[in-house]
Amino acid sequence: MAFDKFKDECGVFGIQPYCEAANLTYLGLYALQHRGQESAGLVAAEQGRLTCYKRMGLVADVFSEAALRDLTGDAAIGHVRYSTAGESRLENAQPILITSHHGQIALAHNGNLVNAVQIRESLERSGSIFSSTSDSEVILHLIARSSAAEIEDAIVEALAQVSGAYSAVFLTADKLIAVRDPHGFRPLAMAELGEAKLFASETCAFDLIDAKFLREVEPGEMVIVNERGMVRSLFPFEKKPTRQCIFEHIYFARPDGLMFGESTQAYREALGMKLAEENPVDADLIVPVPDSGVCAAIGYSRQSGIPLSFGLIRNHYVGRTFIEPKQSIRHFGVKIKLNPVRSLIEGKRVVLVDDSLVRGTTSRKIVKMVRQAGAKEVHMRISAPPTTHPCYYGIDTPTRNELIASSHSIDEICRYIEADSLAYVSREGMFSSLQGSRQEQYCDACFSGNYAVPFPKNGAPV
Amino acid sequence: MAFDKFKDECGVFGIQPYCEAANLTYLGLYALQHRGQESAGLVAAEQGRLTCYKRMGLVADVFSEAALRDLTGDAAIGHVRYSTAGESRLENAQPILITSHHGQIALAHNGNLVNAVQIRESLERSGSIFSSTSDSEVILHLIARSSAAEIEDAIVEALAQVSGAYSAVFLTADKLIAVRDPHGFRPLAMAELGEAKLFASETCAFDLIDAKFLREVEPGEMVIVNERGMVRSLFPFEKKPTRQCIFEHIYFARPDGLMFGESTQAYREALGMKLAEENPVDADLIVPVPDSGVCAAIGYSRQSGIPLSFGLIRNHYVGRTFIEPKQSIRHFGVKIKLNPVRSLIEGKRVVLVDDSLVRGTTSRKIVKMVRQAGAKEVHMRISAPPTTHPCYYGIDTPTRNELIASSHSIDEICRYIEADSLAYVSREGMFSSLQGSRQEQYCDACFSGNYAVPFPKNGAPV
Amino acid sequence: MAFDKFKDECGVFGIQPYCEAANLTYLGLYALQHRGQESAGLVAAEQGRLTCYKRMGLVADVFSEAALRDLTGDAAIGHVRYSTAGESRLENAQPILITSHHGQIALAHNGNLVNAVQIRESLERSGSIFSSTSDSEVILHLIARSSAAEIEDAIVEALAQVSGAYSAVFLTADKLIAVRDPHGFRPLAMAELGEAKLFASETCAFDLIDAKFLREVEPGEMVIVNERGMVRSLFPFEKKPTRQCIFEHIYFARPDGLMFGESTQAYREALGMKLAEENPVDADLIVPVPDSGVCAAIGYSRQSGIPLSFGLIRNHYVGRTFIEPKQSIRHFGVKIKLNPVRSLIEGKRVVLVDDSLVRGTTSRKIVKMVRQAGAKEVHMRISAPPTTHPCYYGIDTPTRNELIASSHSIDEICRYIEADSLAYVSREGMFSSLQGSRQEQYCDACFSGNYAVPFPKNGAPV
Amino acid sequence: MAFDKFKDECGVFGIQPYCEAANLTYLGLYALQHRGQESAGLVAAEQGRLTCYKRMGLVADVFSEAALRDLTGDAAIGHVRYSTAGESRLENAQPILITSHHGQIALAHNGNLVNAVQIRESLERSGSIFSSTSDSEVILHLIARSSAAEIEDAIVEALAQVSGAYSAVFLTADKLIAVRDPHGFRPLAMAELGEAKLFASETCAFDLIDAKFLREVEPGEMVIVNERGMVRSLFPFEKKPTRQCIFEHIYFARPDGLMFGESTQAYREALGMKLAEENPVDADLIVPVPDSGVCAAIGYSRQSGIPLSFGLIRNHYVGRTFIEPKQSIRHFGVKIKLNPVRSLIEGKRVVLVDDSLVRGTTSRKIVKMVRQAGAKEVHMRISAPPTTHPCYYGIDTPTRNELIASSHSIDEICRYIEADSLAYVSREGMFSSLQGSRQEQYCDACFSGNYAVPFPKNGAPV
Repeated sequence: MAFDKFKDECGVFGIQPYCEAANLTYLGLYALQHRGQESAGLVAAEQGRLTCYKRMGLVADVFSEAALRDLTGDAAIGHVRYSTAGESRLENAQPILITSHHGQIALAHNGNLVNAVQIRESLERSGSIFSSTSDSEVILHLIARSSAAEIEDAIVEALAQVSGAYSAVFLTADKLIAVRDPHGFRPLAMAELGEAKLFASETCAFDLIDAKFLREVEPGEMVIVNERGMVRSLFPFEKKPTRQCIFEHIYFARPDGLMFGESTQAYREALGMKLAEENPVDADLIVPVPDSGVCAAIGYSRQSGIPLSFGLIRNHYVGRTFIEPKQSIRHFGVKIKLNPVRSLIEGKRVVLVDDSLVRGTTSRKIVKMVRQAGAKEVHMRISAPPTTHPCYYGIDTPTRNELIASSHSIDEICRYIEADSLAYVSREGMFSSLQGSRQEQYCDACFSGNYAVPFPKNGAPV
Repeated sequence: MAFDKFKDECGVFGIQPYCEAANLTYLGLYALQHRGQESAGLVAAEQGRLTCYKRMGLVADVFSEAALRDLTGDAAIGHVRYSTAGESRLENAQPILITSHHGQIALAHNGNLVNAVQIRESLERSGSIFSSTSDSEVILHLIARSSAAEIEDAIVEALAQVSGAYSAVFLTADKLIAVRDPHGFRPLAMAELGEAKLFASETCAFDLIDAKFLREVEPGEMVIVNERGMVRSLFPFEKKPTRQCIFEHIYFARPDGLMFGESTQAYREALGMKLAEENPVDADLIVPVPDSGVCAAIGYSRQSGIPLSFGLIRNHYVGRTFIEPKQSIRHFGVKIKLNPVRSLIEGKRVVLVDDSLVRGTTSRKIVKMVRQAGAKEVHMRISAPPTTHPCYYGIDTPTRNELIASSHSIDEICRYIEADSLAYVSREGMFSSLQGSRQEQYCDACFSGNYAVPFPKNGAPV
Repeated sequence: MAFDKFKDECGVFGIQPYCEAANLTYLGLYALQHRGQESAGLVAAEQGRLTCYKRMGLVADVFSEAALRDLTGDAAIGHVRYSTAGESRLENAQPILITSHHGQIALAHNGNLVNAVQIRESLERSGSIFSSTSDSEVILHLIARSSAAEIEDAIVEALAQVSGAYSAVFLTADKLIAVRDPHGFRPLAMAELGEAKLFASETCAFDLIDAKFLREVEPGEMVIVNERGMVRSLFPFEKKPTRQCIFEHIYFARPDGLMFGESTQAYREALGMKLAEENPVDADLIVPVPDSGVCAAIGYSRQSGIPLSFGLIRNHYVGRTFIEPKQSIRHFGVKIKLNPVRSLIEGKRVVLVDDSLVRGTTSRKIVKMVRQAGAKEVHMRISAPPTTHPCYYGIDTPTRNELIASSHSIDEICRYIEADSLAYVSREGMFSSLQGSRQEQYCDACFSGNYAVPFPKNGAPV
Repeated sequence: MAFDKFKDECGVFGIQPYCEAANLTYLGLYALQHRGQESAGLVAAEQGRLTCYKRMGLVADVFSEAALRDLTGDAAIGHVRYSTAGESRLENAQPILITSHHGQIALAHNGNLVNAVQIRESLERSGSIFSSTSDSEVILHLIARSSAAEIEDAIVEALAQVSGAYSAVFLTADKLIAVRDPHGFRPLAMAELGEAKLFASETCAFDLIDAKFLREVEPGEMVIVNERGMVRSLFPFEKKPTRQCIFEHIYFARPDGLMFGESTQAYREALGMKLAEENPVDADLIVPVPDSGVCAAIGYSRQSGIPLSFGLIRNHYVGRTFIEPKQSIRHFGVKIKLNPVRSLIEGKRVVLVDDSLVRGTTSRKIVKMVRQAGAKEVHMRISAPPTTHPCYYGIDTPTRNELIASSHSIDEICRYIEADSLAYVSREGMFSSLQGSRQEQYCDACFSGNYAVPFPKNGAPV
């Protein structure tokens, strides 16, 4: 008996008290859409009664005007979930709303628990019923089993039993509770709007609705907001070293945010500059791989003095339901998204800048496409170290076997993608480019294999 | 009796003979999606029988796998249409497929006829029935009225009676016919794929499907493709001076294309450089207004030496069905699309680069937003001359009254948008930045009021 | 060049002036749903501006609350259309709304024109464009071609050129016009509600909305209702003998109506009594074939004294999208609709009463099913004469070849359907059962081949 | 803490082993559609893996061809659920599929448990989480809590703790299990098709798919079907007096079935005859209230010799999404469903026959409608005794306060509905009309208040 899927990257949001809580949550999820395109949902509380609405799809498709009109009340939490092929199902969408002897509780969870399989097996043996394959449901069962009188104590009891990553918001009849695991793997920020308190995975959700960013929820902290917006803060868990996810900065977060004390965009430009400093190349043109490589490419161009042009154009209308022609069209999967600009590229020595190189297959197609558009040389530069290890704390990376850097040297990868040269930012460079935070506060397990929390063999994605 | 709406910008596509003609047309429309998000449709010909499929919506939503499966045959034309508030209706979607004594004829039309109202009134007086408010339907009625034996002669007869802009593809039981009006206002390019010949508004449609760009259809040319892909070219109309649309280059076309002998992206970068040369400013940071101002901003940064950063982040998930909160949130309309990056902007003297300034209302909001994010100074630079006149040849510009530059000086506009300075590229600069084409070949009526084709008073959008 | 499909049975409705005209029309179409399940639509006029809304599907599915909310105005006409396999398309749905030099005109038409193909070919030769394959569109083209100053004169001019069946309602900017062809093949009734005047194919549409039935529109009459509900009546056509459709009474109309001066239900009961009188049988039980045979079965039971039971139960939830199992299940097509009640039938001599026997295939399955449920004998009685000829005036009967009675004797049909006996009502019996109307007023071409209006060879469904 | 809704009438189906198990289940649900129009669902087992598919809506709308294609495997159970205003939600749809330490178990349940609230509260206190407000979920939690090694033992352990009504089918990785509560309140029949065994709430589900009815599952019996279709039968519960629901016969069941050893239709006709015998009236015409009063009306007519006509016509296209006009139209709610046939009714002394009179409001409207259609007298006859008590065992009757017969004499009711006379079948007549079963085997609590199973005060619908 095993779970279908444990890993997922997600976005969470919560607000209380605010007259249009559901509508603001909808807007917040809109801003967090890049963190999960599979499903979206929200739970709103009206006079102590919680109602859940969730569907598969993008935020704009999930919520109709009629749906939002029905989600009345002055407290709400919301969730967007990442899409991975096949195993996505409505049962796994969040928030999860349950009824227990503590009353109604809703949970929106970002992160991944490494001991969920073990706890689930034990709960099932003593009679619990699971209705999803999500690890998040384990937390709710543990809360339901707790005999603590206060809901916040039940939550603490439950979370004390799980290990791994969680940045979570809970909603009850009268409380909005935000918690971040002791390592603080995943982000969780806090803001205010009038008397309302808000939580979101990223600060861009606050910007959209003109809420004022206050601070991050700290690793190991539980913040409890009551019906009048008053705040209590607890640190109920055993203290552990902070291990914030460096990959959020490099790849996942929207650039227009503050996270872990850094400006994401400034950091990405700095990585691009460091990349140019560590790995210069004699070339004519910097071309970003859109959209993720743009900030680093700007940094690379600034540091190297080589001009930048958008030599690869992205088709912004590409959706997930694209119907492929039956006849083979070369490199079709990439072509539908990217088109090289021959007039800019032809005859040039081109430096492609991207923020990651995972399996190598896409990079290989892009290099070929750029060469066919007339580039004399194609140099690939990656604004991160080689990705050698999977993430067990909430980012849906491929298994180790699929990570090309886990088993191949940089030279071998360069030959595979058929580039003239390939280089990555060094681990040192990655950390020295930080401005407001320190190396020790970060988890870089995907680059180093240094896992802060051990995981049971059968619980981990291999 | 008047038409609801004459002006529309659109994209057209055609292919014959190709075994998966409808599927390739679908892909072509995907690449042309930026030219029209209101409706999409295609007509496919199977053994001389034409079938039409069109719907309101984006290409990805309009076509299901089942729909494409049913659209068999080895010839097809397609169309995407631009959305303008309110007046969009399925009746006005294209291609239009009709039956006349010439048999079935389908039309996909880009451009605007200036004498359509007059012709329509005359046709109605003699008993014609119109089922849409589109000017394109006039062309089909004129064809139906023609007693010419050959369909191409009937088309020539019909087009000889209209004036204005048309880049059009026709499909009949056995012919694919592409025509461009004598002034050549709107683009139309030609390609081949195996023995098939293809036409599209922009070359990016060919890139996606690996078709080989051959040349542009020339102003006043009619190209007739038979069932085996053989081509005849005619110039059946009175010769007129070429007047290609400069605004396609500046704003409308996808940057990754060749049009009118120019690389769109290279031209936009050159405009940005010219803008910097003509209108320098002592500043710390160049920030493009995404996505349209990006290429010009790169040029401005390159010429001025001032570093560029993406200080405004665009939310790519914004769709048209966005549900607004009831409570007022400041500048909401712009905020949902753009978010400033305070950490990059704070304390800086910022140059915003955009490709157009039409009513001034959006620019005003963006300037305010950037200032609130901490900019010390905000300078606006526009990579086009002031837009002073509406377009009657196929681009849906506002009426003259709404164009702020038609009645206000640059200084007045600058005060209105509350910028520290405002400057545009000069008309001379706009033309001298061209590389492969000459000023005389262009229509710049929207900047100059020099209309190549006169328009009857009641036919024109005032 | 030929039409896809000429024949269709339909329902029409019209009302003016009434504040909720579209909503009442929707209700009227609801009551007329049995006359057409393929498509439904309505045109509403608000201050002289006509708007059309039509879709494929049942009335309840076609109209949403939002759609009705948008169809404002105090005049409306509506239409439901019959579904026949394959050839149903949105283009053929009604009402048809067009713009001509007479302004906007909408038409909802019930009936079939026998010379539509000839007129269409001639219109196309002189430059008309057709956008559907419906014969009704011909009427609108003829109106558009008319130079008459008044719209009613243009309608008269147009209708004077067509021959065949039409009961039609027209809506213009200010008039509601109802017309019935000189033979009066199809029904059309008139009612009032306050100052509003209403027209409908059947009186049940009036009952639903508490409108007061006034009279039938007479054969050859045109009734013109102005904006204040005032009525003018004209008889602008050459007078012809009345030929109302007897099949409406026998089969098509809803039983709870008055039509052609008869109560449909009373007539059906009388037919059942006549059937029993003409064709008695020594039996134990009368079983109606639901739902169409119920009234006649009551009459048969009453006349014969043999008790009636509902020995065949109909599944009222059967829709048209039923998904068949792959594995063969005997008689499945009929079984999903009808189930015999073994406990009632077993050991009995059963008389099945139905209102028609067209191809014989369904009757054959029902006889077998009843026999398998234990009937000792199965006698089939049909409350109409044998159907030997197709209808060219608006009822979608099969072609002559498919009508089993056109080429087989009653004995042969009886053997084919494997009944113990088979009998029909005689033509004399059919007419002598009428109470308020006379034989001469009826068209019974489907039973006799006496066609009142000749039809051109290539125009007729063979 | 209380449940939203405990009472529901439903239909269940199960089959194993059969290659197209899901498709046959779909067909079975089609035949059982009258038992529940709110939601439909099925769980199919493919090689020991269970998959659930359920939606709100009618069977024909819930299941698409694609959905059925995906529900592979050779065992399936299905469920349709009754719609009651407001409280219907997808969470309450069935079958319910859960994962426990016994593996996957699916349940489709018809009936109502009277002690579910108490058990639920106790389970929640010890940490169980409920995801619906359905009483059926309680059964699954009790199974999950059981430590029995075999799933059938766990089911017996669970059911031994609940009291009330259940006719249920369970599906596990390899077993199909049918159970009926010791009183046998609700029906459950058994059939075979090849080697497959089938269960259904009514035998009409077997007729549709040509399965052979074997027998009813007996009160207190558990039937276990293994993967090869072999059957074991157990009687694991304490024996109790049989109390089958007489209301199924009178009202709820489809007439074309055998249930509790009776032919439903024959019983209804016998009730009609008894009604005429006990309550004769001097009248001209029997008119059934369609559809439910038809069988009794036939019996009444047969016994009394008064002719029967369908003087009230039902609109079969009425759906639940009917859009009402804003302006008041008299009796609209009933008129959209029923229309009187004036020509049959006018001047007659009419006997209306119906199978129940619950609140009296609908009967009152029908009497008025028939009188307005010209009836000289209107006599109401009900083929059941007065409904004085609510059902706690699975039929969704109104609360006692709403049952007019609970607080008013027959005379008072007669005055309220404004009939000339009103009469019911007597309790004795109701039982003496049975042919194959005896009074003692029936629950008639809704007519007598004799509840076989006591219910806790707060668990019962008041």
